[in-house]
Amino acid sequence: MTSPPHPMKLPPNTSLEIFTSFITRCTSLCGASNVQIISQDSPLDDGSYQDPCKGHDMHAILSKTYFVASAVVYPRDVPEVQAMMRLCNEFVIPVWPWSAGRNTGYGGAAPRVPGSVGLDLGRHLNRIIEVNVESCYALVEPGVTYFALHEYLEKRGLREKVWLDVPDLGGGSIIGNAVERGAGYTPYGDHFMMHSGMEVVLPNGELVRTGMGAMPDSQDPEELKKRPDLQTGNRAWGLFNYGFGPYNDGIFTQSSLGIVVKMGVWLMPNPGGYQAYMVTLPSDAALNQALEIIRPLRIGMVIQNVPTFRHILLDAAVHGPKSSYTSSKAPITEEEMDQIAEKLDLGRWNFYGALYGPQPIRDVVWQVIKGSFSQIPGAKFYFPEDRKEKDSVLHTRELTLQGIPTLGELSWVDWLPNGAHLFFSPITNISGKDALAQYDLTKRRCAEAELDFLGTFVVGLREMHHIVCIVFDREDPESRQKAHWLIRTLVSDCAKHGWGEYRTHLSLMDAVSATYNFNDNAQMKLNESIKDQLDPNGILAPGKNGIWPASYRKDIDKWVLGADWTSGNPPATWRDM
Amino acid sequence: MTSPPHPMKLPPNTSLEIFTSFITRCTSLCGASNVQIISQDSPLDDGSYQDPCKGHDMHAILSKTYFVASAVVYPRDVPEVQAMMRLCNEFVIPVWPWSAGRNTGYGGAAPRVPGSVGLDLGRHLNRIIEVNVESCYALVEPGVTYFALHEYLEKRGLREKVWLDVPDLGGGSIIGNAVERGAGYTPYGDHFMMHSGMEVVLPNGELVRTGMGAMPDSQDPEELKKRPDLQTGNRAWGLFNYGFGPYNDGIFTQSSLGIVVKMGVWLMPNPGGYQAYMVTLPSDAALNQALEIIRPLRIGMVIQNVPTFRHILLDAAVHGPKSSYTSSKAPITEEEMDQIAEKLDLGRWNFYGALYGPQPIRDVVWQVIKGSFSQIPGAKFYFPEDRKEKDSVLHTRELTLQGIPTLGELSWVDWLPNGAHLFFSPITNISGKDALAQYDLTKRRCAEAELDFLGTFVVGLREMHHIVCIVFDREDPESRQKAHWLIRTLVSDCAKHGWGEYRTHLSLMDAVSATYNFNDNAQMKLNESIKDQLDPNGILAPGKNGIWPASYRKDIDKWVLGADWTSGNPPATWRDM
Repeated sequence: MTSPPHPMKLPPNTSLEIFTSFITRCTSLCGASNVQIISQDSPLDDGSYQDPCKGHDMHAILSKTYFVASAVVYPRDVPEVQAMMRLCNEFVIPVWPWSAGRNTGYGGAAPRVPGSVGLDLGRHLNRIIEVNVESCYALVEPGVTYFALHEYLEKRGLREKVWLDVPDLGGGSIIGNAVERGAGYTPYGDHFMMHSGMEVVLPNGELVRTGMGAMPDSQDPEELKKRPDLQTGNRAWGLFNYGFGPYNDGIFTQSSLGIVVKMGVWLMPNPGGYQAYMVTLPSDAALNQALEIIRPLRIGMVIQNVPTFRHILLDAAVHGPKSSYTSSKAPITEEEMDQIAEKLDLGRWNFYGALYGPQPIRDVVWQVIKGSFSQIPGAKFYFPEDRKEKDSVLHTRELTLQGIPTLGELSWVDWLPNGAHLFFSPITNISGKDALAQYDLTKRRCAEAELDFLGTFVVGLREMHHIVCIVFDREDPESRQKAHWLIRTLVSDCAKHGWGEYRTHLSLMDAVSATYNFNDNAQMKLNESIKDQLDPNGILAPGKNGIWPASYRKDIDKWVLGADWTSGNPPATWRDM
Repeated sequence: MTSPPHPMKLPPNTSLEIFTSFITRCTSLCGASNVQIISQDSPLDDGSYQDPCKGHDMHAILSKTYFVASAVVYPRDVPEVQAMMRLCNEFVIPVWPWSAGRNTGYGGAAPRVPGSVGLDLGRHLNRIIEVNVESCYALVEPGVTYFALHEYLEKRGLREKVWLDVPDLGGGSIIGNAVERGAGYTPYGDHFMMHSGMEVVLPNGELVRTGMGAMPDSQDPEELKKRPDLQTGNRAWGLFNYGFGPYNDGIFTQSSLGIVVKMGVWLMPNPGGYQAYMVTLPSDAALNQALEIIRPLRIGMVIQNVPTFRHILLDAAVHGPKSSYTSSKAPITEEEMDQIAEKLDLGRWNFYGALYGPQPIRDVVWQVIKGSFSQIPGAKFYFPEDRKEKDSVLHTRELTLQGIPTLGELSWVDWLPNGAHLFFSPITNISGKDALAQYDLTKRRCAEAELDFLGTFVVGLREMHHIVCIVFDREDPESRQKAHWLIRTLVSDCAKHGWGEYRTHLSLMDAVSATYNFNDNAQMKLNESIKDQLDPNGILAPGKNGIWPASYRKDIDKWVLGADWTSGNPPATWRDM
């Protein structure tokens, strides 16, 4: 028997000897083919995005090997997930759960603590357990991607009855997206709101069901003897989220308190008609007027879906790399933006929405929306059939906005050679004044960092997720430094205005959580208190969103990635940082 | 100085001497006029429903003085709420927070543990802090009732812009209803879903803000010096619920983990048109067919609001007491029901809904709804103007369904002399088969208990709250026993079918929570674990929804109100129980 490969990073406070004996236990638990050590020799960039090893460094900005796991384990079922938690407690080894997809811009599959063990649920826990067309929900495991559920519906002809809601990329995990509180673009775009019921493995390995799932479908022993399937779940689990007593689901989102291994997701009834549309606006000033028009329409649900206001450079990047528009390496100028917009027959800002329902409803709604936007000088209106170019953004959005997963959005990351990106995602209210203020600040900082502003406003029920896509050349240390300086500076800048991020990259989790500091960090103290109680050994996703277990807090300087580089001025030269 | 009155019940493990010294401290904290001992001589039924003392026994079914507080304290501001929590920790005295209204059918303002100190937030913490018409939300304190916010909007002419969502009775606290996960009847009927942001006093007295409220509105010291108002809250607090990191709001609902002292509530934009309607159905069989019609319409949001299917006797009870229909004391028979329906020109089941939006939208929607219900033989359709009787239920619902608070529904509790009631509230899916099965079971048990079935199905987004109103004569021990036997038996019966309650009366909290027992009560163990961590002395609302702090679990038989009387058969005589 050959000795196992030496991992690139060992877990904290763990000798190679102990690690090896831990791996032996993992192997006997999950089988040798389901345990993989991440060594210098093992491929990290094998091109398969379903393999979390790939993601580990794709978005790394500190160095190529800071956020890296020691090993990845692929449990085959829920009892193995439970057993892995008990094993990690026994060895006091941190574990970082992962489902499927890319988590692009937020850190991929990489763990916050170097040397953590990746727990990949995507390979085996990928069953679509139930699709209930009558009551419009599905019960899925973490490995079920948007593509997988879509294909399931398509194959059975069920899209006639129910639609999915999908995010920009369809390869991700439905559960993963919801527990990170990701968004989609149909009327069901708030993925946490549109879930019902969870099955969760707690840090100690206990299995909990929330909502109505906490009640078995029958408590009649005779009935259960006759029909053991009734023990699998309550019929209202996917229907009524809250159950009885404290509603705990939220503490399992963006958190390190449990691993969601089953979840109910609400499906949208086929609305009986659909029409995607685009409105192009000629200038930044038009964005201001447009948002004042949109706010009442969106809150009043005249705009039925989660629409997006995309900056010209984001759409341009979908059509081609920066080099296809200019030979300059400097940030694109205002004049160049106008030229690009003209070339692509788009506006400075481009609004993508959709109408849902039978023709008479759509007609009334479109009349209102078009009439309102028509007040803006220079606004132009398009349906997909009006656009003749191949693979226009509107054609991709036409699919996305009816819940058909795609990968079309991927291409903007190639704006620069060796393109990688970070998402900077502050929340703002739906207001021209605030949005423009946030845009101006962000654009100015992008220019200081010598990077382009590629952004989109995603219009939710009362607010907007302003998603700034910071594209950099991952092979160029200077470009990485620029991106890192930019995002750290923006976190700090925006906090001064009261603008907070809804989600962030691994390397920014401490910085962002530190801005949610009302009353001497009272929320963080609450989070730490619950964390310490449910995970006394601090093994589950330590450091996730800035929450450090007690054992790490004793030595916190070793772990926190602090708010340095936030003086407000860019460094004299980027190499100096 | 006269000695203070002896309380009817002392807090557990508390001598009169210690209690007196505790009361002295309360008095110096909140002022003498804001501390009231509940003694034999103090009026418990003074007719003011804003006084929690009144509620303490109104719904008591065990005995008139089991669920009773030792004293009530009325803090004047949030720091006093925090100080009270610290004081209760110091004395290890249980505290039961209360806002405003009746909490009718679920225990009023009475505490679960006899002798707890009532903490009444309604008297002083009743500020409407902000109404934001542009972004459609309000920020309120616990003492703000639906009536109060409605009046605020009316006085300023703001109902032209925004509407409330209200439950059946308008006297309750907006926060109290949302944290108990109560429901209303407009499109904004899910009150927890439609909140955004909380300020919470934890059991240890710490003050936490959730969501975007955890981020101060500015982190710029200069800015804060100039504008101290920015410290009061983040501008997105009422817009974006989730904030960053674990989403904790749910654990403060139906729970004993904190006292919500501020909350954001979303307001509905005036929809630009409104029409209430009623559909009457002649028979139970018609209910079956109707629910199969309703399910797709409701899930597809063609039925835009939270409609209700009300049993004839519930509507009859609004119009007059049982004695106005029959001289018999026995449960109303099927024939009598038909006679009552004919007399009132109502159906066996009566469906109350509303259309929202401009005329062209309402026309399309009404065409679909009326067309669908028209398939049911004997269905009849009414708008409010079609009903000539005074104070019809439809006239009251016409107000409720546009968010205008009323007290009209109060009268059905007078169905019996000295009428009081319990709510039995199981969840069911929206299906004729399941609803009829639940109705049949419930009606049969009502008959065994010699009580009438008064019920309504409240149709949510994917499920129904089946609200059974168990009306009894609170002055008649036999009638109380019947009601108690009935509800305990129904909890047990329904659990056998997998039907769980969404909320329950004080005396049933242990029984109901015991039915949510998946995987050896894993959810309860989780709840207890978090409870023990956040409230080690177990002072905040011990026993709430079956969650007992560690100090009570040591002696649990003393506290739990167990699942006795559930053999399935009614007792030989009611006096024997």
